Amino acid sequence: MKNLTYRAALLITGNEILSGRTQDANLRFLAQGLGEIGIKLYEVRVVADIEEEIILSVNELRRKHDFVFTSGGIGPTHDDITAQAIAKAFGDKIVKNEEAAKILIKHYGEGNVNEARMKMAMLPSTASLLDNPVSSAPGFRIGNVFVMAGIPKIFQAMFFAAKKELPVGSKTISREIIVSLTESIIAQKFSDLQNSYPKLIMGSYPFNGGTSLVISGENELSVDKAYDELKEIIKIISPQAIIEQ
Amino acid sequence: MKNLTYRAALLITGNEILSGRTQDANLRFLAQGLGEIGIKLYEVRVVADIEEEIILSVNELRRKHDFVFTSGGIGPTHDDITAQAIAKAFGDKIVKNEEAAKILIKHYGEGNVNEARMKMAMLPSTASLLDNPVSSAPGFRIGNVFVMAGIPKIFQAMFFAAKKELPVGSKTISREIIVSLTESIIAQKFSDLQNSYPKLIMGSYPFNGGTSLVISGENELSVDKAYDELKEIIKIISPQAIIEQ
Repeated sequence: MKNLTYRAALLITGNEILSGRTQDANLRFLAQGLGEIGIKLYEVRVVADIEEEIILSVNELRRKHDFVFTSGGIGPTHDDITAQAIAKAFGDKIVKNEEAAKILIKHYGEGNVNEARMKMAMLPSTASLLDNPVSSAPGFRIGNVFVMAGIPKIFQAMFFAAKKELPVGSKTISREIIVSLTESIIAQKFSDLQNSYPKLIMGSYPFNGGTSLVISGENELSVDKAYDELKEIIKIISPQAIIEQ
Repeated sequence: MKNLTYRAALLITGNEILSGRTQDANLRFLAQGLGEIGIKLYEVRVVADIEEEIILSVNELRRKHDFVFTSGGIGPTHDDITAQAIAKAFGDKIVKNEEAAKILIKHYGEGNVNEARMKMAMLPSTASLLDNPVSSAPGFRIGNVFVMAGIPKIFQAMFFAAKKELPVGSKTISREIIVSLTESIIAQKFSDLQNSYPKLIMGSYPFNGGTSLVISGENELSVDKAYDELKEIIKIISPQAIIEQ
């Protein structure tokens, strides 16, 4: 049986990313992690810590894609508004999640769970918790939306938990050739090759001193066939041009 | 006279970002560069190299924000579809831009401008070129949209050209205190402080070993006042907790 193709989106909430204070590190990790199980990261949005922006974006994305991952805003401070916004997006309300409360009490010790800390247990009533071995911050799932932390280490731990609930789709196979040619030299032939393999995706990524040519698709045989043809094309243009294959 | 507040969005087109192959480097640069001239980066989207996705996103973003910057897809290969998509988004068509063609001919030398290279001169008929001292790839402006390269060095050069056409808005002033406390210790007091300064934005960013507290706003006097109050609050909680201020 052929695996299905699944699509996902990432919604990063964070003034600190939009101000340039922090460099995002979750996009690439998620893209690669999803790729390994055959789910395509199809779209990413970064929005400010503003409730309406989060609600609008999550509602648009969860209808458009199979899965949505959010990153950021689930901590104990006043600027952590993701759980509340997600609840509203689903027409749900936030209630004290007893399981999350227990984890927080265990983590901080009875008597040390102040109001701010207990705020982290306030989750949408229909949410289910994601395992988080790294900290006690509760990530959760509601519908097709996985709500995860912004701190990369915790985001990554939550993704491993989320993966248990994700299907495995058709994996995309990629082959790359790095050449010491500017892309405009190979553009025409590469475009012709793309036209003869309409089901594959061929990308050309220039860098200082050369170009990386990437062929990807779900059918490994066609990817390999196109890849061999590309190598032949390059050898004809310039036999010494292949840096890495 | 009070400066206006301007909002901008960034649209990154690129399968290579969504596959995790490449780490984006333009978001943070743009956020900081815009911040310096008082323009707020309000939203970012990353979409695949698919014409309809680019058209939909750019039309949504250019109506919602004062300025839109795009990154990627203006090179000579078949996967460089941004100029065409932007033209369609504006109900315009692409034509040979004589100025861009001249620059390409000068760069590559008469006789070396093959079809793929000349494709880079095909721009929306109402576009105006952005200066690009780094390469001959033509970035351009159409309406409130600045279409720029994906390669960071060229993106940055184009942004310096774009800046000449941008207004200067009210700058956001930020003050940061780094403390050796977990954020849940200061959450309540920090939230109270936020409530007493509703026009300022206060963010709490935990890291391994402490928390960074950031206060920002357009009014420097209030930012400084809130910042001093925050320092007092922290001193009361734990006099040795301030790592950096």
